[in-house]
Amino acid sequence: MNPLQRAAPVDVEALIARRPMGLSLEAPFYTDEAIYDLDLARIFGRHWLFCATEAQIPEPGDYVTMDVGPYSVILVRDEGGSIRAHHNVCRHRGARVLWDECGSVANIVCPYHQWTYRTDGTLIFAESQPPTFEMEAYGLRPVSVRTMAGLVFVHLGERPPDDFAEMAAVLESYLAPYDLRNTKVARQEEVVQEGNWKLVLENNRECRYNEASHPDLATSYFPVFGYSENDISPQLRPVFERYLVAAERLEAARAAAGFPRDERREIDTRVTGFHISHHPLDGEGSSFGPHAEPLCTRLLGSIGQPAFGDLSLKFQPNAWFHFLSDHAVLFRMLPAGPTRSVLQTTWLVHRDAVEGVDYDPEALTRSWRITNAQDTALIAKAQDGVENPAYEPGPYSLVEDDIEACIRWYVDRLTATGEDVGAAVAQYAAGL
Amino acid sequence: MNPLQRAAPVDVEALIARRPMGLSLEAPFYTDEAIYDLDLARIFGRHWLFCATEAQIPEPGDYVTMDVGPYSVILVRDEGGSIRAHHNVCRHRGARVLWDECGSVANIVCPYHQWTYRTDGTLIFAESQPPTFEMEAYGLRPVSVRTMAGLVFVHLGERPPDDFAEMAAVLESYLAPYDLRNTKVARQEEVVQEGNWKLVLENNRECRYNEASHPDLATSYFPVFGYSENDISPQLRPVFERYLVAAERLEAARAAAGFPRDERREIDTRVTGFHISHHPLDGEGSSFGPHAEPLCTRLLGSIGQPAFGDLSLKFQPNAWFHFLSDHAVLFRMLPAGPTRSVLQTTWLVHRDAVEGVDYDPEALTRSWRITNAQDTALIAKAQDGVENPAYEPGPYSLVEDDIEACIRWYVDRLTATGEDVGAAVAQYAAGL
Amino acid sequence: MNPLQRAAPVDVEALIARRPMGLSLEAPFYTDEAIYDLDLARIFGRHWLFCATEAQIPEPGDYVTMDVGPYSVILVRDEGGSIRAHHNVCRHRGARVLWDECGSVANIVCPYHQWTYRTDGTLIFAESQPPTFEMEAYGLRPVSVRTMAGLVFVHLGERPPDDFAEMAAVLESYLAPYDLRNTKVARQEEVVQEGNWKLVLENNRECRYNEASHPDLATSYFPVFGYSENDISPQLRPVFERYLVAAERLEAARAAAGFPRDERREIDTRVTGFHISHHPLDGEGSSFGPHAEPLCTRLLGSIGQPAFGDLSLKFQPNAWFHFLSDHAVLFRMLPAGPTRSVLQTTWLVHRDAVEGVDYDPEALTRSWRITNAQDTALIAKAQDGVENPAYEPGPYSLVEDDIEACIRWYVDRLTATGEDVGAAVAQYAAGL
Repeated sequence: MNPLQRAAPVDVEALIARRPMGLSLEAPFYTDEAIYDLDLARIFGRHWLFCATEAQIPEPGDYVTMDVGPYSVILVRDEGGSIRAHHNVCRHRGARVLWDECGSVANIVCPYHQWTYRTDGTLIFAESQPPTFEMEAYGLRPVSVRTMAGLVFVHLGERPPDDFAEMAAVLESYLAPYDLRNTKVARQEEVVQEGNWKLVLENNRECRYNEASHPDLATSYFPVFGYSENDISPQLRPVFERYLVAAERLEAARAAAGFPRDERREIDTRVTGFHISHHPLDGEGSSFGPHAEPLCTRLLGSIGQPAFGDLSLKFQPNAWFHFLSDHAVLFRMLPAGPTRSVLQTTWLVHRDAVEGVDYDPEALTRSWRITNAQDTALIAKAQDGVENPAYEPGPYSLVEDDIEACIRWYVDRLTATGEDVGAAVAQYAAGL
Repeated sequence: MNPLQRAAPVDVEALIARRPMGLSLEAPFYTDEAIYDLDLARIFGRHWLFCATEAQIPEPGDYVTMDVGPYSVILVRDEGGSIRAHHNVCRHRGARVLWDECGSVANIVCPYHQWTYRTDGTLIFAESQPPTFEMEAYGLRPVSVRTMAGLVFVHLGERPPDDFAEMAAVLESYLAPYDLRNTKVARQEEVVQEGNWKLVLENNRECRYNEASHPDLATSYFPVFGYSENDISPQLRPVFERYLVAAERLEAARAAAGFPRDERREIDTRVTGFHISHHPLDGEGSSFGPHAEPLCTRLLGSIGQPAFGDLSLKFQPNAWFHFLSDHAVLFRMLPAGPTRSVLQTTWLVHRDAVEGVDYDPEALTRSWRITNAQDTALIAKAQDGVENPAYEPGPYSLVEDDIEACIRWYVDRLTATGEDVGAAVAQYAAGL
Repeated sequence: MNPLQRAAPVDVEALIARRPMGLSLEAPFYTDEAIYDLDLARIFGRHWLFCATEAQIPEPGDYVTMDVGPYSVILVRDEGGSIRAHHNVCRHRGARVLWDECGSVANIVCPYHQWTYRTDGTLIFAESQPPTFEMEAYGLRPVSVRTMAGLVFVHLGERPPDDFAEMAAVLESYLAPYDLRNTKVARQEEVVQEGNWKLVLENNRECRYNEASHPDLATSYFPVFGYSENDISPQLRPVFERYLVAAERLEAARAAAGFPRDERREIDTRVTGFHISHHPLDGEGSSFGPHAEPLCTRLLGSIGQPAFGDLSLKFQPNAWFHFLSDHAVLFRMLPAGPTRSVLQTTWLVHRDAVEGVDYDPEALTRSWRITNAQDTALIAKAQDGVENPAYEPGPYSLVEDDIEACIRWYVDRLTATGEDVGAAVAQYAAGL
């Protein structure tokens, strides 16, 4: 731990107030436990969080669990087919109820004394309680849940932001053609990142899959990704021309499919921030194969052709997605301490795609598994550096403007309610 | 760590004052470092703790060490055959002196600079001290020690509760027939429990070795253990009838042996809380074999017949015991952090029982080794749950009344002295 | 953690003020995080620290890195051949720049976004910054550096003590004959010590390589090491006579070589404390072989004969050295937490000595590798003991007077500036 934390509590309000535009955050934002708690309370306790896809829990009784700081949530499809979320804590003596990351149950049974709940959360068995015991008062505590085009979001607190429906209305038209409800999980991996969750987010929001850091993934992306015409040096000119041709081709395909065409960059303009954009890919223009070729022969939804680029969705605070013609990759990031995060990556293919026939899971997942490992190393280096007292915030470059917007959103959301810092954290810690 | 701890110090007095009857404790009692320190100071620093049996240190120079929070105690039989306890810290420059859990020494020699102490604690060698050095001022610091029917207890502080002799007078008549001083250790195991010591205690005090959690042990116990006549459903009636027969048979055997018959349940009625009771076992009624058959052919002390049930002793705060006709199992539990405890299990058989002839150590220890492992898993689930801010204290069931009594004792003992919380912990931390 | 830390913050000033002469320090000095932070700020942040030898970075671009608490320093030979030190943090977004303990580079390139610095620290590449960006404002932040007879020292803060030149003037005449700049690293090892850095220092400053703790090393040292004539028992008399003969022989050799002869014991008399002394060795009198025989056939510098004893230099706060006729052993100790330190040991031989011909690296390093392992065990025992609340400061013996002097220096240096404790730590943590 940086001794700053022990020497004197950080003045969170002052740090927020003096944050200058265009520079990386001061060190305590990446290292301090009090700010981490505030992040949990005000960011992860008060915003919609991406949890899973409906495709992960297709049948009644199917569930996933998700840990968010000290909280744990059960996402489950109930007997009626509805998706529910519950706090993963038994109402008897408090044991954690479900332990696996995913599974399937008839009822939800606590392993300690077999208190038994329906998948909708109602308590149906509690041993040796007196006749006055009111069963209906001891159901699993509910968590808010919303779905959008097959993506499922939860909210830990009591007053979720009211702009979810508005966001969903925008995004569903982008996502509907991929028909995510008719997909299945081809693979899933979880990687621990030894860095504060904002360093993980910044690392993602760079939007640059450059050759130095990510040579494998870089073959799919144009090395002018994120550049404007002004940034193009004579040396990059041929690549940029190739990019313009691919962009025009994608534009035509999109028009033919009646697909929304405008980028929506709502990073720092709303409570539930997001950013959706549709980019051409280099090479074959289709997917994340070594030459940007497809990795699954069965295309998703109503996408009619392989060369349909990368529909990229970034969601604040905890997810980003790539939708290709042939598969989708979903990233879910959650904090696991002031200097540790967990990144879950899920690869989806069409429900009817056959492993070993339509796709090879090793090939399908290769580029992002490698990229995740490379990012893990970079994030650890970044974390180590900001813990050094010699660190001073430095200038974001011109191609790092999405990071700046994200950080602006973050700082703004920390202060949005105007309420006292200590009160926010105490409420979170005592149960939202 | 639950952010509650960092958000604001818990108000220990308020938590104690508002504790409602019949509900599990609020989360900070199981997670908070300040309450853990208070537990160390007021519970483990001011009550008798079970340490070992005399059978573990039969000869002069034999010792065991026991760590209690930041303290470490040497229990040793001195040259005169008396049992002594010392603080395990060299008086020279403070090195820990003895490192093994048990062993045998001529003198107690510090490994750092060879300061040498007799087993009674007196210093007999200290290199290169000036002539004015007073050897007698630098003996190992003593720890209070008491024995009862071969069980050895220590007390870390200066004013031990004065009710030990009274308790011993009651319990010795129960324990004397087992003649523990003429036993030997058949096996000993240590298991780390990832839970606050009170969750370990509650898990033990349930008194229910039910089939769901403990199928192996459950074959020895009647599945109506802890039930009163009113709790018996028609389905359980045949088992209950079998239980009544076994109870009557045990009563007769006990009467023939002139053995005390009354349960003594002194859980929340005294400083040194205990609970002793004698239960029939199912099947052969003898011991913890798969059909409750004996596990050692050589019976203990003056117990004349194998089918002599389970004499169960529970001791607060840190031990519980089962005395069977053929062996005894001793459990010693010590805190090792706010969310971690260490459980030591010791199996004793008659001193003259021969391994491989009279008993098979694997068979002897099987049911409790399995039960310990099952409890370890359950306790970890319970700890995880109470760390979730969504946890709320829940109702103990009708068969969990011993837990409620134990928790009442605990809360009462925290406040018994009326002194300031901070002062109690500071005194403990500075050396009792 | 000792609950004392949580019960109440230690009163550092009071602890310092009441420290009695001749006794080991009170427990918080070895365990408390606030005192650890103060040690980092006032001892390691405000004194010269031994870092490396010039022989470790002979060519331009050669570097070593050194972590000191939360800081990390790059020591590098620049293109002009000068030795430079920089903070190991990128000026862009703060990533740690160099990760290996040593290596060689053309330029210093950050692995994250390839910001590139010359070895002298000037920034020469930063991607996509606006035209207004001032490259010269973003060089690596410099760290003060000094050399003495081939030994390199750094200082993290802005106002280094001004007595370095004075010390160097004294010591260079002792060290010059060994010509350290013409050596090379034969081996280097790093050992984690589970103890506060002052316990590591005390363990070294004992000056006693006694048979009980270090039987292997003890064959080179006289078992009367550190004893005065008065300490010699009849039993030790023959050894002492042998010692006197060896001392006289060394004195003659030293006189012939025109080598400084007086011990300089400046442990508690100056800011940059040190202690240099030249001792005869037992057996062949040369080096750390089993009979004190040489371990490298190529002698160092202008040392004309193998039997030239042990020139021992102790430097505060973080190093000690043995210079023999045939090799040198350098110890660099750095804190890595309140209860953990890292000891680096470096063996130097003449630059032209040939491995496998002039020296066998296993034999060369054997006695100190074993001694380090033994000390690691002893320090862990000492740390464990002082964490026990039953620990009380105990009396240093007559042969432990160098420890007492070291501790006096330490306590004096903590209070030297008269400034507020909190301010010192906050300044350190925020970047010196």
